[in-house]
Amino acid sequence: MNKKKIFNDPVYGFITIPYDIIFDLIEHPYFQRLRHISQLGLTHLVYPGALHTRFSHALGALHLMNMALDTLKAKGHKISEVECEAVSAAILMHDIGHGPYSHALESSIVKGVAHEDISLMFIDRLNKIYKGDLSLAIDIFKNNYKRPFLHQLVSSQLDLDRLDYLCRDSFFTGVAEGVVGYQRIISMLDIHKDNLVVEEKGIYSVEKFLISRRLMYWQVYYHKTSLSAQKMIVKILKRAKELANKDIEMFATPALKYFLYNNVSKGHFETDTEVLEKFAQLDDFDVFSSIKEWKSHDDIVLSRLSWNLSNRNLYKIKIQNEPFDKELVNDLQDKIVKQYNINKKDADYLVFTDVIKNDAYLSDKQRINILYKDKTIKDIAEASDNLNIKVLSNPVEKHYLCFPKEVNFKYL
Amino acid sequence: MNKKKIFNDPVYGFITIPYDIIFDLIEHPYFQRLRHISQLGLTHLVYPGALHTRFSHALGALHLMNMALDTLKAKGHKISEVECEAVSAAILMHDIGHGPYSHALESSIVKGVAHEDISLMFIDRLNKIYKGDLSLAIDIFKNNYKRPFLHQLVSSQLDLDRLDYLCRDSFFTGVAEGVVGYQRIISMLDIHKDNLVVEEKGIYSVEKFLISRRLMYWQVYYHKTSLSAQKMIVKILKRAKELANKDIEMFATPALKYFLYNNVSKGHFETDTEVLEKFAQLDDFDVFSSIKEWKSHDDIVLSRLSWNLSNRNLYKIKIQNEPFDKELVNDLQDKIVKQYNINKKDADYLVFTDVIKNDAYLSDKQRINILYKDKTIKDIAEASDNLNIKVLSNPVEKHYLCFPKEVNFKYL
Amino acid sequence: MNKKKIFNDPVYGFITIPYDIIFDLIEHPYFQRLRHISQLGLTHLVYPGALHTRFSHALGALHLMNMALDTLKAKGHKISEVECEAVSAAILMHDIGHGPYSHALESSIVKGVAHEDISLMFIDRLNKIYKGDLSLAIDIFKNNYKRPFLHQLVSSQLDLDRLDYLCRDSFFTGVAEGVVGYQRIISMLDIHKDNLVVEEKGIYSVEKFLISRRLMYWQVYYHKTSLSAQKMIVKILKRAKELANKDIEMFATPALKYFLYNNVSKGHFETDTEVLEKFAQLDDFDVFSSIKEWKSHDDIVLSRLSWNLSNRNLYKIKIQNEPFDKELVNDLQDKIVKQYNINKKDADYLVFTDVIKNDAYLSDKQRINILYKDKTIKDIAEASDNLNIKVLSNPVEKHYLCFPKEVNFKYL
Amino acid sequence: MNKKKIFNDPVYGFITIPYDIIFDLIEHPYFQRLRHISQLGLTHLVYPGALHTRFSHALGALHLMNMALDTLKAKGHKISEVECEAVSAAILMHDIGHGPYSHALESSIVKGVAHEDISLMFIDRLNKIYKGDLSLAIDIFKNNYKRPFLHQLVSSQLDLDRLDYLCRDSFFTGVAEGVVGYQRIISMLDIHKDNLVVEEKGIYSVEKFLISRRLMYWQVYYHKTSLSAQKMIVKILKRAKELANKDIEMFATPALKYFLYNNVSKGHFETDTEVLEKFAQLDDFDVFSSIKEWKSHDDIVLSRLSWNLSNRNLYKIKIQNEPFDKELVNDLQDKIVKQYNINKKDADYLVFTDVIKNDAYLSDKQRINILYKDKTIKDIAEASDNLNIKVLSNPVEKHYLCFPKEVNFKYL
Repeated sequence: MNKKKIFNDPVYGFITIPYDIIFDLIEHPYFQRLRHISQLGLTHLVYPGALHTRFSHALGALHLMNMALDTLKAKGHKISEVECEAVSAAILMHDIGHGPYSHALESSIVKGVAHEDISLMFIDRLNKIYKGDLSLAIDIFKNNYKRPFLHQLVSSQLDLDRLDYLCRDSFFTGVAEGVVGYQRIISMLDIHKDNLVVEEKGIYSVEKFLISRRLMYWQVYYHKTSLSAQKMIVKILKRAKELANKDIEMFATPALKYFLYNNVSKGHFETDTEVLEKFAQLDDFDVFSSIKEWKSHDDIVLSRLSWNLSNRNLYKIKIQNEPFDKELVNDLQDKIVKQYNINKKDADYLVFTDVIKNDAYLSDKQRINILYKDKTIKDIAEASDNLNIKVLSNPVEKHYLCFPKEVNFKYL
Repeated sequence: MNKKKIFNDPVYGFITIPYDIIFDLIEHPYFQRLRHISQLGLTHLVYPGALHTRFSHALGALHLMNMALDTLKAKGHKISEVECEAVSAAILMHDIGHGPYSHALESSIVKGVAHEDISLMFIDRLNKIYKGDLSLAIDIFKNNYKRPFLHQLVSSQLDLDRLDYLCRDSFFTGVAEGVVGYQRIISMLDIHKDNLVVEEKGIYSVEKFLISRRLMYWQVYYHKTSLSAQKMIVKILKRAKELANKDIEMFATPALKYFLYNNVSKGHFETDTEVLEKFAQLDDFDVFSSIKEWKSHDDIVLSRLSWNLSNRNLYKIKIQNEPFDKELVNDLQDKIVKQYNINKKDADYLVFTDVIKNDAYLSDKQRINILYKDKTIKDIAEASDNLNIKVLSNPVEKHYLCFPKEVNFKYL
Repeated sequence: MNKKKIFNDPVYGFITIPYDIIFDLIEHPYFQRLRHISQLGLTHLVYPGALHTRFSHALGALHLMNMALDTLKAKGHKISEVECEAVSAAILMHDIGHGPYSHALESSIVKGVAHEDISLMFIDRLNKIYKGDLSLAIDIFKNNYKRPFLHQLVSSQLDLDRLDYLCRDSFFTGVAEGVVGYQRIISMLDIHKDNLVVEEKGIYSVEKFLISRRLMYWQVYYHKTSLSAQKMIVKILKRAKELANKDIEMFATPALKYFLYNNVSKGHFETDTEVLEKFAQLDDFDVFSSIKEWKSHDDIVLSRLSWNLSNRNLYKIKIQNEPFDKELVNDLQDKIVKQYNINKKDADYLVFTDVIKNDAYLSDKQRINILYKDKTIKDIAEASDNLNIKVLSNPVEKHYLCFPKEVNFKYL
Repeated sequence: MNKKKIFNDPVYGFITIPYDIIFDLIEHPYFQRLRHISQLGLTHLVYPGALHTRFSHALGALHLMNMALDTLKAKGHKISEVECEAVSAAILMHDIGHGPYSHALESSIVKGVAHEDISLMFIDRLNKIYKGDLSLAIDIFKNNYKRPFLHQLVSSQLDLDRLDYLCRDSFFTGVAEGVVGYQRIISMLDIHKDNLVVEEKGIYSVEKFLISRRLMYWQVYYHKTSLSAQKMIVKILKRAKELANKDIEMFATPALKYFLYNNVSKGHFETDTEVLEKFAQLDDFDVFSSIKEWKSHDDIVLSRLSWNLSNRNLYKIKIQNEPFDKELVNDLQDKIVKQYNINKKDADYLVFTDVIKNDAYLSDKQRINILYKDKTIKDIAEASDNLNIKVLSNPVEKHYLCFPKEVNFKYL
């Protein structure tokens, strides 16, 4: 059977599937699940178009990967079909372990299990199904392969994952500010001593890429209202977990129920195959249809939060550079305790403060290397005569404070 | 409080909300529900970008309405603020009664209650909430107002509903073929004897609009694979309803359970306020999270269908101009009965045939009137020197046959 | 030297140059000349963005050619590197003989020499320069090569020339109506018995392509105002030629002067190498800078026309289905004779009528063949269940009448 | 007569003309001349799509002005119809004095007369024609009107001129990097004490605007190849002027000849009405059609330069942060003197070095003021927690060296 298939993508147009194994991976239920995992969680509450999924992001990253491989081959680098296939599989699968609503579960009901771990478990299992055909993809994914540029195409400061999500997120949010010249950046990629580099004349595009990323952080990813919604869903899931731990009954889809009423650790994932299978059943539908029902739960904390989120009555959020005054937060919590008639120890579900951080470019971790005509290499932070790249390297930290709109905090 | 709000729309850019009442309507849970009703149902299984919702469609239609009103006023027509506000409310609410997955429920679990009826019930209830402020909007919606062009802007062969959904659906599917020049069409609108007409020089744009619509039908709305998915979801819901009627237990979200285990008619909707409130809880999340669970139901018909739909193992579909041979269909059903070991009377859930119809333009029902400089009027079918418009008036009927992929029907 | 070069194209993004010979051809002055030949002549007087040139059109067609070749090869057809290079050269050069302002010269100062003839002469000369490297390109161009699909990619009812100009012209005019789904059409191309065909499921896209083309004709190519400008420039050049034939002096750039004061025929082009070299000097700059100067020429016909065109005081134009009444035209000419105090025989420069014709699809000449799964072939006119394609096959003929705005023709 | 007119703009879609006087100004030959003045001069030699003109830029800026005025009025600021009309006229006319190929003439044949001066002369003359109707527009243009925000909309660090040219230039070059979110920026504009300010939440968009501008400078406006072409055309015109001053004959269109063979100063423009009328005849056609002819002039300097520019055989250009070594330049000039057999004093036409400078944002001159909710004002350089804005304030200076490609300078 001819496995050629074309996907229509609003961002890039037609996406062709380069290899049969890639087609098979896409067809697999593990990957089809990503059709129901939104890329930007609840951001659509702010940008109504932002409903795109990890499924289309993965296809988009695959598309850019193939453009990048073509470019590198056209520049005279030998990359074998086997390597191309493997790195294509690696980028396709890179996010396969993501749970519903981004990182919502990681910090609530499936604590201590990062989505990267789960991605690897899924890929390992697929590798067994496909009898080892994904072994090289796994090596590349884990950066165990001798040619590091292949890993860097999948995961680095300038990988095709980021390139796609910036393009895709700015497209579907309608935030023109985030538009990145992906064709130009890809055309500037090169390989130097088996590492991914950018040609000298690509400096401006790399600068622009870093700046777009930073702006997308504040305009979209950390948009106040969207951040408020994200934090609310985490609080809801934490509360549900707390109630479940006390054996209090609540409606949930069976897949979600499993993770609410069982405490699964990374160890369980690794030893009990059922756990991963259960996780493979879990998507945005489970979480949101359960939250919708929790609007009428007896627990006032759970029901208030769920009602507010479902009806887009989102918490107010203040963002500032300094930490919020502890006493202020305490006062607010006291107020909410009285207003809702809840325990003080539960006040943290409704009034809370924390830190958000945005590293546009951290040169100490990973570098974006610029290749000069004389074959020397410089980090973009040095190469740019636009000193602000250096400034961008400093992570920006901000503090936020969330509280229900209906509470009247006059002194804020 | 200033209720000015701007939505970022990937299709048109910024959408401003023109009136306070409109802002309030958008905030209402009845309208917020549309955030979870996808515009194109399961079409995203074919076009992965097509995840846009009735929420953004309603905003888009509102935006085009305001462009149209500005155009008509600039041409010297008097339209009062009150009329503008009312027609804006009418277009915003026009689809508020849509259930999950388009018309899936209408033909399965909530039989005989058209979404248009439910829309009106919601609007009536909102009118009570807003103390009669929507009365004129309702008159316009029902075409009871003295100036028919206002109703025609909301609902006619060339209304702003259609204009938006063609633009929006082609944008998110990535089907360039469907692109419509909405600015040009709107700029050509005019009023003649209180009816909506199109200026003479807009003929080509209207032709193009009708042709785009026809092509979108076959390329998107009736795309084979997407049609198969649509028909499967109807069969699933019908089966679930049948089992519920026999008091067989199954998982469902409470909102969906209500409609599965109660037989609600249009009469119930009208007399029992709870029914509409329950309906207001229902969205895509309820349906799909329940179907996901039905994969493991004891009923083989329900579980096969649910498994196949969830994992995008969609039924094969054949489309042809003539009806399918009854004997052939019968043979296929016999085969499926044997293969799945089910009753013959259930075979129709798995092997079925029916008709689809596409009326691009039916001049006998409603007309698109072209206004000539000498103030005469002609229907587009006459005005166009491109005779094919007349051909377009003939509805195209096709027959389809659906059956599971895993069944090997050699003679097809 | 590495001849890799990338062009930035607003329509498609990056265009890469596939072969060294293609790069060399682009660099040649014969091809660089196309930078100063606008694709749509004076259409920018109506659509101000429509300033794109035959240079970028040729690059665009080259780009689509390479997409088409990739598609065909991916479908298993063997096309050698030599063939790919040749057909790329052929499409790049297909319009190299175009003179300034489209066909303006053909019907005025260089009568009887079609641009296709001149294209071939340029290609022949380039073939000598490149020592026969273009021989296969020439065979393909002339349809003398054994594999006709290669010629059909360059020139047929559905060639990449048309595909590019529809995309490009709708992009730069801003006429959304003309947008064509080029990716989809190209992905549907196939080869059957060495002829270009379209896969069955491409029918709707082909229909849409034909309809877009028809609409672009009336909305852009034959837009009333643009048509008026086109006809005026022809009249200006004819008048200049007439004056030159009478040895009346006038300003002109040397290149244009050569063709004004010498009567060159196709024979001269073929026998005298200087003629082609002079033609190679001629572009839009020569024509328009001369017309600008003719505003103040003594000849009233030349100066009025030139003044009107330069200041965009374009002639009125009436278009109708029937021929204009001869007596009416005669009366108008009499009027203009009096008003301008010119000879009756010159009136035809200022008041004139003629025919325009638009063949969207003429199945008797060339066919667009649809390939069915059973390997049978049907012409699109038969294959389409949308009968209007048959209607489209009838050429539309219209009559126009042009006359100066300043003349008050009350009875029109 | 109804003067309503709509322009189709590829960048923004439909542009409507808001006032009759604006329509009349557009129709005037002074403004129509801008149809033949390209916005980006010879940049199309690098970005083939960049053929857009000052005509469409002026319409685009007018369009954005009307969006801005609507926004400001919607925020409750009173701006009278008379003010709106005047500021619309001011932005429409802001570049009406531009000569062919940007600043090419200012530094060669019409020395010491800035295009801003000529713009004002044209506007003054139009004001006479329209009997004083443009007086307020002139006051706004000169910043003599009591409400400075109106002038700032026309000319300031964040005016609608810049906003349009960034959008337009990035659109037509195809440089996605330059895309600016014009809708968002405009929606953030506000007025504070009669000065234009930006709302607090517009900070990121302003940052992005400044960065886009900087990148457009280096990627487009100061693109090496494009810079080389710009410098060559200046050298050509200077040489022609030098020859004309010596009464050496050369071909030129009459309009260009006037400025070559007469030495006109700002004084002449002001006192002799014929000078401005002659200037009004001059556009890109005059300059390039003359240069094309100069390819065969006897003067080797003029002919080499003209030949090289016409055939896009552009000079090599080196750009570096430090000045080029004087001795090196001298050596190169000696070499060129020998190779071309020219006088040493003419060598500077063929080998030359100079400085380019880019001020993305100079806070000492003009400010972009951010308005906080507490009604305080901060300059963007302070308001941005992204320190790089401060860095952007330092103008970047670079040095370039140009020389003919055919000369083999091994030591470079």
